[in-house]
Amino acid sequence: MIKMIMARSRMRRMGMAWQKGLIKKMRLHSYSSKVIMSPPLVSLDLPDVWTHSSSHDHSLPPPVCSYQRSATVIDGKSIAEGIRSSIAGEVKRMKDSIGKVPGLAVILVGQRRDSQIYVHNKIKACEEAGIKSVVSLFPDDCTEDEVLDALSNFNEDISIHGILVQLPLPQHLDEGKILDAVCLEKDVDGIHPVNMGNLAMRGREPLTISCTAKGCIELLIRSGVKIMGKNAVVIGRSNIVGLPTSLLLQRHHATVSIIHAFTENPERITNKADIVVTAAGVPNLVRGSWLKPGAVVLDVGTCPVEDASCEFGYRLVGDVCYEEAVGLVSAITPVPGGVGPMTIAMLLSNTLDSARRAYAFT
Amino acid sequence: MIKMIMARSRMRRMGMAWQKGLIKKMRLHSYSSKVIMSPPLVSLDLPDVWTHSSSHDHSLPPPVCSYQRSATVIDGKSIAEGIRSSIAGEVKRMKDSIGKVPGLAVILVGQRRDSQIYVHNKIKACEEAGIKSVVSLFPDDCTEDEVLDALSNFNEDISIHGILVQLPLPQHLDEGKILDAVCLEKDVDGIHPVNMGNLAMRGREPLTISCTAKGCIELLIRSGVKIMGKNAVVIGRSNIVGLPTSLLLQRHHATVSIIHAFTENPERITNKADIVVTAAGVPNLVRGSWLKPGAVVLDVGTCPVEDASCEFGYRLVGDVCYEEAVGLVSAITPVPGGVGPMTIAMLLSNTLDSARRAYAFT
Repeated sequence: MIKMIMARSRMRRMGMAWQKGLIKKMRLHSYSSKVIMSPPLVSLDLPDVWTHSSSHDHSLPPPVCSYQRSATVIDGKSIAEGIRSSIAGEVKRMKDSIGKVPGLAVILVGQRRDSQIYVHNKIKACEEAGIKSVVSLFPDDCTEDEVLDALSNFNEDISIHGILVQLPLPQHLDEGKILDAVCLEKDVDGIHPVNMGNLAMRGREPLTISCTAKGCIELLIRSGVKIMGKNAVVIGRSNIVGLPTSLLLQRHHATVSIIHAFTENPERITNKADIVVTAAGVPNLVRGSWLKPGAVVLDVGTCPVEDASCEFGYRLVGDVCYEEAVGLVSAITPVPGGVGPMTIAMLLSNTLDSARRAYAFT
Repeated sequence: MIKMIMARSRMRRMGMAWQKGLIKKMRLHSYSSKVIMSPPLVSLDLPDVWTHSSSHDHSLPPPVCSYQRSATVIDGKSIAEGIRSSIAGEVKRMKDSIGKVPGLAVILVGQRRDSQIYVHNKIKACEEAGIKSVVSLFPDDCTEDEVLDALSNFNEDISIHGILVQLPLPQHLDEGKILDAVCLEKDVDGIHPVNMGNLAMRGREPLTISCTAKGCIELLIRSGVKIMGKNAVVIGRSNIVGLPTSLLLQRHHATVSIIHAFTENPERITNKADIVVTAAGVPNLVRGSWLKPGAVVLDVGTCPVEDASCEFGYRLVGDVCYEEAVGLVSAITPVPGGVGPMTIAMLLSNTLDSARRAYAFT
């Protein structure tokens, strides 16, 4: 048994050394890609070498987060602007080199005001980055076949590299059937089961990762937050945000717990977390008592709340009770201006990547 | 805001009532299916209705687990025998009705002693249940094309309903490429990315779920362990066990945390868990101090350790320090005779289900 433990300890040291080299290599790679700082996924697959003494292992660096009186506000808007500017540069380079630009198609069904605003913002961002965009608008009472026909055309259109179905769809449409009709190569939302399966499974790499999940990781990396080994909690388990964020955090070797509405005593889990990503869509769900001093908080929740004093009669609020959190945590994203702008930036990035693959443009 | 909370509280009550009705319905369904007690997956998709007071919600029943001096030993062998006997009955009914039996093909590459034993046990179990089985044996130095050719033949063979590639494969073979070649309908190991993606995503249902993950849930259900709302920890994140088990526990509305070799202070997380499933493959990794009194422990670890006093010169040990755990937890699976036999029973069940689909036999 002693021999086994010694061998394991050696393997672990080798693993750590290999891992350090790999991280250095990945940093070099990510700087050279110019747009996104997140490393490629598969290279992050590190061997799980277990030791019996892992609980008392002091070889890992201490947590980045330390208790501060006033949190750093993570300026997602400014970070996203920088990324969008880099993407615009890459799109120009593609156009100058091969005479092509990336193309995004959006399908919007119905008259939901929030969906209309989201789509408007995405299209505007495409224009600014030089990405071609097309929107197919359908009335609330359209048929499934009408939507599927439009999807089929976009799948075949070689000038379109990304297809986005704005969710939620009206109840009478089969969301699963419609999303399945988007061809894997153009699934810029990362919501195709093959992309999700490949994100979940070690040793595999999805073509695309959910824009919000990718945006969250990018914010953590750009804010200098260490993810590996940290306790991360994801609140919410939606297919589009909570699930891929939890899977991606795990790919970055965080220890992930997923909280949902059936969780008993959620704050007993959240207040042990170094990183909290919340995407429940419930204003003020996360109170100060839910958070560990010094934690890093990413608030994906974006809920319109009536407010007559605001221009449009409402204001957007997140899941986190910001006033309670800001004096307690080490870093936090505001709502709006935190994760939201990153989601759009990652959509442009995913569309650019898809066009790069289609044209074999590096 | 008060109006919002009241509406949410009403929705929650409705959700709970609906949920109770659903559970009752599912129980009826599961009893009628005769073989597996786990409910169908998609029906388990419950709406996440969040409340601000969820931390103080006493409407949920108290935990099943209570502290006992001596744990119930979950007799996986006996439970699996019962399931295999039911499967044999169903196979006979299929043969009598339509003159067909389910067929399983196994691909085994190389001379690993443990893999040979596993395959031998699976084939023997097939024979006893009346399921046809075929094994393709390849030498250690076979080429990828040879394995892919065999897979292609099994994919086309209408008498084969399940294909199993015994892992691990020798290093020179591309595991991902080989597993991807198994057609989705015959993926009785539930390891195809589409099956994994559909297991992960709410509102979707995989054709097949990993045998071990399914076996673990079946053991919990048959042992009367409540899963919904409980804190569950999965130790290990392999594609074949840890990952699907964590996803399946979440489908059953547990609050799941995934521990791996990069987790800092793993026992600080495991000793808060009501349910611990451990699949690290490290003997005695989980000590008594890692476990909460009254927890339920499923030990998937199966590691051969040299022991001259045993018939074959070795004995199998799990991840859990059994002697320390047994006086502390409320229920535990032994190694061997716990989860292992369930994995084989679930393989037979998955093969039967696949044949049922192929022949539209209910």
